[in-house]
Amino acid sequence: MAALSVAPAGSRPDGASIGIPYSPLQKAAMTSIDSILRGYLSDNAAGASPQILDAVVAASAGPAAPYGNDALTAQMRAKMAAAFECDLDVFAAGTGSAANGIGLAALTRPWGSILAHADSHINNDEAGAPEFFTDGSKIVLLGGAHSKIDPDELRAAVNAGRGDVHSVQPSVLSITQVTETGSVYTINELRELTTIARDAGLRIHMDGARFTNALVALDVSPAEMTWKLGVDILSFGATKNGALTADAIVSFDPTLATELSFRHKRGGQLTSKMRFQTAQLDAYLTDDLWLENARQANAMAARLRAGIVDVAGVTVTNEPGSNILFAIFPDELSDALHDRGFGFYTDRWGPGIVRIVVSFVHQAVDIDEFVAAIRELA
Amino acid sequence: MAALSVAPAGSRPDGASIGIPYSPLQKAAMTSIDSILRGYLSDNAAGASPQILDAVVAASAGPAAPYGNDALTAQMRAKMAAAFECDLDVFAAGTGSAANGIGLAALTRPWGSILAHADSHINNDEAGAPEFFTDGSKIVLLGGAHSKIDPDELRAAVNAGRGDVHSVQPSVLSITQVTETGSVYTINELRELTTIARDAGLRIHMDGARFTNALVALDVSPAEMTWKLGVDILSFGATKNGALTADAIVSFDPTLATELSFRHKRGGQLTSKMRFQTAQLDAYLTDDLWLENARQANAMAARLRAGIVDVAGVTVTNEPGSNILFAIFPDELSDALHDRGFGFYTDRWGPGIVRIVVSFVHQAVDIDEFVAAIRELA
Amino acid sequence: MAALSVAPAGSRPDGASIGIPYSPLQKAAMTSIDSILRGYLSDNAAGASPQILDAVVAASAGPAAPYGNDALTAQMRAKMAAAFECDLDVFAAGTGSAANGIGLAALTRPWGSILAHADSHINNDEAGAPEFFTDGSKIVLLGGAHSKIDPDELRAAVNAGRGDVHSVQPSVLSITQVTETGSVYTINELRELTTIARDAGLRIHMDGARFTNALVALDVSPAEMTWKLGVDILSFGATKNGALTADAIVSFDPTLATELSFRHKRGGQLTSKMRFQTAQLDAYLTDDLWLENARQANAMAARLRAGIVDVAGVTVTNEPGSNILFAIFPDELSDALHDRGFGFYTDRWGPGIVRIVVSFVHQAVDIDEFVAAIRELA
Amino acid sequence: MAALSVAPAGSRPDGASIGIPYSPLQKAAMTSIDSILRGYLSDNAAGASPQILDAVVAASAGPAAPYGNDALTAQMRAKMAAAFECDLDVFAAGTGSAANGIGLAALTRPWGSILAHADSHINNDEAGAPEFFTDGSKIVLLGGAHSKIDPDELRAAVNAGRGDVHSVQPSVLSITQVTETGSVYTINELRELTTIARDAGLRIHMDGARFTNALVALDVSPAEMTWKLGVDILSFGATKNGALTADAIVSFDPTLATELSFRHKRGGQLTSKMRFQTAQLDAYLTDDLWLENARQANAMAARLRAGIVDVAGVTVTNEPGSNILFAIFPDELSDALHDRGFGFYTDRWGPGIVRIVVSFVHQAVDIDEFVAAIRELA
Repeated sequence: MAALSVAPAGSRPDGASIGIPYSPLQKAAMTSIDSILRGYLSDNAAGASPQILDAVVAASAGPAAPYGNDALTAQMRAKMAAAFECDLDVFAAGTGSAANGIGLAALTRPWGSILAHADSHINNDEAGAPEFFTDGSKIVLLGGAHSKIDPDELRAAVNAGRGDVHSVQPSVLSITQVTETGSVYTINELRELTTIARDAGLRIHMDGARFTNALVALDVSPAEMTWKLGVDILSFGATKNGALTADAIVSFDPTLATELSFRHKRGGQLTSKMRFQTAQLDAYLTDDLWLENARQANAMAARLRAGIVDVAGVTVTNEPGSNILFAIFPDELSDALHDRGFGFYTDRWGPGIVRIVVSFVHQAVDIDEFVAAIRELA
Repeated sequence: MAALSVAPAGSRPDGASIGIPYSPLQKAAMTSIDSILRGYLSDNAAGASPQILDAVVAASAGPAAPYGNDALTAQMRAKMAAAFECDLDVFAAGTGSAANGIGLAALTRPWGSILAHADSHINNDEAGAPEFFTDGSKIVLLGGAHSKIDPDELRAAVNAGRGDVHSVQPSVLSITQVTETGSVYTINELRELTTIARDAGLRIHMDGARFTNALVALDVSPAEMTWKLGVDILSFGATKNGALTADAIVSFDPTLATELSFRHKRGGQLTSKMRFQTAQLDAYLTDDLWLENARQANAMAARLRAGIVDVAGVTVTNEPGSNILFAIFPDELSDALHDRGFGFYTDRWGPGIVRIVVSFVHQAVDIDEFVAAIRELA
Repeated sequence: MAALSVAPAGSRPDGASIGIPYSPLQKAAMTSIDSILRGYLSDNAAGASPQILDAVVAASAGPAAPYGNDALTAQMRAKMAAAFECDLDVFAAGTGSAANGIGLAALTRPWGSILAHADSHINNDEAGAPEFFTDGSKIVLLGGAHSKIDPDELRAAVNAGRGDVHSVQPSVLSITQVTETGSVYTINELRELTTIARDAGLRIHMDGARFTNALVALDVSPAEMTWKLGVDILSFGATKNGALTADAIVSFDPTLATELSFRHKRGGQLTSKMRFQTAQLDAYLTDDLWLENARQANAMAARLRAGIVDVAGVTVTNEPGSNILFAIFPDELSDALHDRGFGFYTDRWGPGIVRIVVSFVHQAVDIDEFVAAIRELA
Repeated sequence: MAALSVAPAGSRPDGASIGIPYSPLQKAAMTSIDSILRGYLSDNAAGASPQILDAVVAASAGPAAPYGNDALTAQMRAKMAAAFECDLDVFAAGTGSAANGIGLAALTRPWGSILAHADSHINNDEAGAPEFFTDGSKIVLLGGAHSKIDPDELRAAVNAGRGDVHSVQPSVLSITQVTETGSVYTINELRELTTIARDAGLRIHMDGARFTNALVALDVSPAEMTWKLGVDILSFGATKNGALTADAIVSFDPTLATELSFRHKRGGQLTSKMRFQTAQLDAYLTDDLWLENARQANAMAARLRAGIVDVAGVTVTNEPGSNILFAIFPDELSDALHDRGFGFYTDRWGPGIVRIVVSFVHQAVDIDEFVAAIRELA
């Protein structure tokens, strides 16, 4: 069965014009289009929630003021403020990379540094977007188990080089919640990190591409997981959890609004028909859709984990809690599952390591089918 | 009647946190939400074509490979190639500013200069996005009547400072088609400019935010208006003519594909659920929707122009051909029309100058109502 | 006689590796090495003042703390503060382009604009260094006779687009004193411009590559020509008037010191053996050397002007006052003078236009010889 | 005895305007100006070689063409080419940070990554200058003992993310020779690294701030240590080894000359009186001055090492070979030496760690005095 290559978007089908050979790590372990159709490759392989699609269609009725000066955008903003129990500024972004880049740029000068986990998306998966949007700030890497920043490493880093003109200046702590490997910081863990950073004068950024999955996992309020801990700017992910193309930069510091406005425009994110972006966010925040979607994804991931944790030869390696499952599968198992049409990444994080991401569209019947296949083929 | 303020997107309703006073030029001449509902403020005040909305909804059925590695994106690419009668690379962009910025960045090094008309969008309306995306290239301004570049000015500029290490190096000619004031370059006019630029070794960029309006106005093929004239990269506008949030960078030079891929990702434009972007472009290119929409807008603008050109006190100032009308209205007329709910910009381009933009949603009955109001109130 | 090509520094002698053909405008009208030895090409064709050379040699005696933490740097700073009658921060820069770029970067954010004359060095002669150092700010051009900014054009520009998120924000007024064509703003002219800018909230930058030539021409104090008029940052030129490689960024606003420190380091200007830079500035400020050198240059330029102003066929075109003379010479005259070994630019600013720059090394006998040659050959 | 604070250059003496508190790590362990006068703080605490001072003074005699178009610059270039036994391009730079930044920028696009040791100067000591000059490239860190890159880590890194549009692209290997901790790569060690990088398509940059110290330590030719191993661009340090303010970017790839020319100008490094920079490099390369200076520094460091290696309580920790000595001293010993006026860093690299740098100015009598003091006070 022919391998499905994963070319950079926009490349020619044969990759000929790209001129850069693909590394084995990048080759997704998909062997047919069917494997994609089972949809465990990522939560962005899913479609959108019907409620959000309806809202997009509804937003098209009649003209509206462009560039976010429309009533729907104002309404979304009010809903976001209500959800977070505070006044805030919100800017829709087409990608998480744009949200992260623009948010970080508002929190550091170019000679500042961003402290982040070595596993973080901003470090590994954005082709240098943070460096681009911040005009060349430096990401300083920290370690820690399960992709969570080790507080002692943070303590050592927050003052490194401070006041030394030869050194970049520690300026921002960027926390990923849910982490890249699916673990979820507890509120106490978050508080320890944000306190260290705050005490040293750093700003706090949260990459919340899977923000809501963490929220429902911890069963806390949005406020408790953000500004009450000192978070200044949140990359509020919606795309992976039901939206089409809409994440958001949420700022809890009104003094950043002007800078964010200009960086958002200048960064190519101020869409003219903004209501089509904000309609997605508005519906997402309506009738607990965001929370329900995240609960479904998390519950199905837990069901999958429970179903395979005792299978001989399979080792589940990451912390439970969110919608991501990391495991070690024998190569033969992965191959056999791919042949059955179950799509998920192998080898991208190391030999034998598989990542399975469950999304809000998955139902118990899907999970049970997947579990059965794993148990049969293992 | 209370004025409707036009705040930067994301700003607080009272503008308090912005901290920058509004200039009179920026104040849109809108006096009620009704004025927006009549929709002549801009073609981005319109909603989306039903066919495009349908395509977006349909794209949500079932999972798909993320980041543009899906079948719909491949199909769209093929339709674009067919429309332009050549192989090409295409990258969806959420805004025209992003499309322009990324496209220009692929055509010049930071010490290169971009030759453009002083009226161009890249110079006036993108808050420095081209300078941001190009890592600090310089836009060198040219004049010319009706926002069209004067060939003699171009001739003088293409070699200015060439080879002088103290000077930026002329690298790109950026042509806006339709221009900012609604005029349309003829093919011969385009050829003269692109020949001058090509002969001097410059690359050619076309800002086609209203590309299709020009195409149908000239009744030429996409190929004739682009790569056959030497255009390297086109910002292909779809949003203003029926899409929701999707423009595209179209590159006719395969050697630029790798650089564009990375700049597109790094610039925050590689959406994870790319099919929701490409679905818009795909439907736009299907069954001549793009051409039909543009023909409707242009025809309605011509109908409006014909209806008011002889009104005493009203002077239509721009060239006919596209969907934009510039005119001088007495202040009393503008005010009275605003009170009737007709929305359009006044004063932004100078005292007394009004800009009326007609879009694909306008029908003859709308235009006739507008004409009647102007004739009555003038 | 073979033409002496003026290649970019570092290029191969035959220019082969540069790959960019030279434009006629760039070709300096020099026909032998002798023509350089007469030294009217620019004031940077001169060597250094003996007092400054002595100071550099003296600075080498014994070790010193690096990076400007040495006693000589502190002493220079004190002399600069005394000369300007105020506390200030000073950062040595190896070039005027670096001084301008770093100074401007401290006065504007990337989405800000810098208002400057179209003839200014930052616009024409720095290969985009301001755009580079400011992370992509935009220089907005103003006109005005004799390379002096027209106050009415400034008035129109200071508020253009203010508060409009689609527009760059007017942030800095950059004034060149002495201007590129050798004219000198009067204190009243400067005050009018700085008042307009200050009233609109802009910061003030002064490009003083020939600062001292203006100072002695106006017979005012450094304070009167800078901070008393609201200048925030001055590019203090010394190289053209007697130093080797040392200009300086002088900041009158203590709140800018931290940002300037980091931009100066990050911009590659914090020399490890800083005392060799500050020794130059220290000697320059000692015993009125800077003032004496500028007086000599200005006086000799006036002597030259007086000697040729009545020559038939020669038209002196620029304002008197500084050490630069612009004139129209018949081509035959320029050629004949070049053959005699007098070096000066022709054609760079337009056909027939010559620029003659007199420096502190020129003596009355030199000028009289030049005048005699012009009168003989005209 | 009051500590001598080491403020960023240009800061106010009391640091008040800097606003950033100093970290303990930054506080240099100097207790009086005498301690500086003993000069072991860094090799940039030394003055300049008399021959170089003479050359600078001589360069001032008579006018010369500006911006490097002078005869002395051409002569220096020829000497550099002779020393390296190849044609090359050379650009004088005022600082090593500028040389590194501009050189790296010519070897990578903004989405490329630079592979470098975690201890490297470009990572730790340039306040983000590489990120600034490269328009936001990323430095990816490698480990390895004695600040030398581990070949296995390099092997793993050269292909990481290659062809993956989500990842920065490995583009440059930057090697520091002499390393930051004074170790010297052997030719075989260099060849192993450059071969790995070359085979993967990376470019090679060498940070040679102490290039000549390595050269004489290995007793190889400049060619053997650079282009014969595949080095594309060398930051050729001269300042630490006898010059005043002149390092150089040496490029062995003629296709980079144009880009380097523009980046050098745009980066604020093209001095108008360039001959004062190139005179330093010319004298440095004349009559083996560079080699003699480096031999003296290395020999004196070896003498110091031999004199203290057996002292109880003192542990010399770094590899021998160059002019740098890292050791662990009891705090009481460091304090007592500081009180005697011996200046060197303590604590900057960790508690108890001292760095002693010997330069070309040190003579046997100086070293013997230092050794005697250490032996007496230990």
